[in-house]
Amino acid sequence: MPDTTEPRSTGPSPGPTNGYPPTGRTVPTRSSDRAAYDRDLIHSILDEAYVCHLGFVRDGAPVVLPTLYGRVGERLYVHGSTGSRPLRETGRADPGLPVCLTVTHVDGLVLARSAFHHSINYRSVVVHGIARTVTDPQERRTALDAIVDHVVPGRSADSRPADAKELAATAVISLDLREVSAKIRTGGPNDEPRDLALPHWAGVVPLTRGCAAPVASADLDPAIGVPDYITAL
Amino acid sequence: MPDTTEPRSTGPSPGPTNGYPPTGRTVPTRSSDRAAYDRDLIHSILDEAYVCHLGFVRDGAPVVLPTLYGRVGERLYVHGSTGSRPLRETGRADPGLPVCLTVTHVDGLVLARSAFHHSINYRSVVVHGIARTVTDPQERRTALDAIVDHVVPGRSADSRPADAKELAATAVISLDLREVSAKIRTGGPNDEPRDLALPHWAGVVPLTRGCAAPVASADLDPAIGVPDYITAL
Repeated sequence: MPDTTEPRSTGPSPGPTNGYPPTGRTVPTRSSDRAAYDRDLIHSILDEAYVCHLGFVRDGAPVVLPTLYGRVGERLYVHGSTGSRPLRETGRADPGLPVCLTVTHVDGLVLARSAFHHSINYRSVVVHGIARTVTDPQERRTALDAIVDHVVPGRSADSRPADAKELAATAVISLDLREVSAKIRTGGPNDEPRDLALPHWAGVVPLTRGCAAPVASADLDPAIGVPDYITAL
Repeated sequence: MPDTTEPRSTGPSPGPTNGYPPTGRTVPTRSSDRAAYDRDLIHSILDEAYVCHLGFVRDGAPVVLPTLYGRVGERLYVHGSTGSRPLRETGRADPGLPVCLTVTHVDGLVLARSAFHHSINYRSVVVHGIARTVTDPQERRTALDAIVDHVVPGRSADSRPADAKELAATAVISLDLREVSAKIRTGGPNDEPRDLALPHWAGVVPLTRGCAAPVASADLDPAIGVPDYITAL
């Protein structure tokens, strides 16, 4: 991310007991003081987002697609049609498909006196690993429930589960949380001391995200009210 | 994205006069009725987001990183430290680095009676192409202004421009909008007719995004008020 001349730290502290061990791929070349490896923190960033961006290599070139996902402990799941590209590629790859799964929250706009130090406040998680096709029927069910509950917690128990035909049309891939890092920027602009007297406004514009009132389907039985787990969103 | 059994259309309509020509990479294998190639639509999706997810290949594996970007006509710009990975890789690659740049807005949560038809409403743009290092001094200035103005329109004119040292520390890469597509889902759930009488709430939870009140830096001269271009956000 920008404002790239911030002082380098001496590098990220080694992962705490409850952290993912840093690797060559998860130690950033810049702003390494922003890197974090704590599991609880990384889980919370992953659980708060609706979509991830899944990257894979196809014919030597990168492809990045947005997709829903779910987390069960130290494993992420992505699903899709058996005909969709990343799912097909995973099925073909042996022992699996190298992927990079990234989740980002943009929390604020950071306005500095200098153009150079403009930035954003953000929290991102990058997961490197090998995606594998999930074939175990029970794990597939667990994964599909987790993906629905990731969007709306509690929803999988209040919907019709997939039937055999739907299950047959759905591919599920898994990605273990092993090589994982977060990167976080918070706080105000890092202006140069010589710029502090310039006549430009400086500060942060926080960004907000929320849900508007639910819109029921036109064909919904009016006797069915909005469930508590939706009101709670 | 999910609810993968929607009826396939006969394929996307060929790009209109003002559209990007579809290619093998930009015609989706699934839900091709959701694909769009209109330039104005694609520009509006690109201009509305704060970060993109930039994918590239490093040591044979995909890497996906969030980053700021700007658009000038049919060209996107990404900047970063001269030491950051994608910028360095681009400098090394001849004639440039294959990348995939993806932007996604999540507009709503789509709750169907069946778990299978759960989805989200979204607008995404995927750009495939070759990133090139920008060396022309004037184009670099234009690009850096565009990246600042992408975050806060009008801001580049109200901040100190980069000086020679800052410019030397900043790498800028460009990506032309040639192989581009949007994918859009709108509307309510696509439940199966046999599920319509099930006792589950169905509909859409729209998501909202906004800005909270700007927070001035503690060291800001109190005589400097919030500029109109920030209030307008």
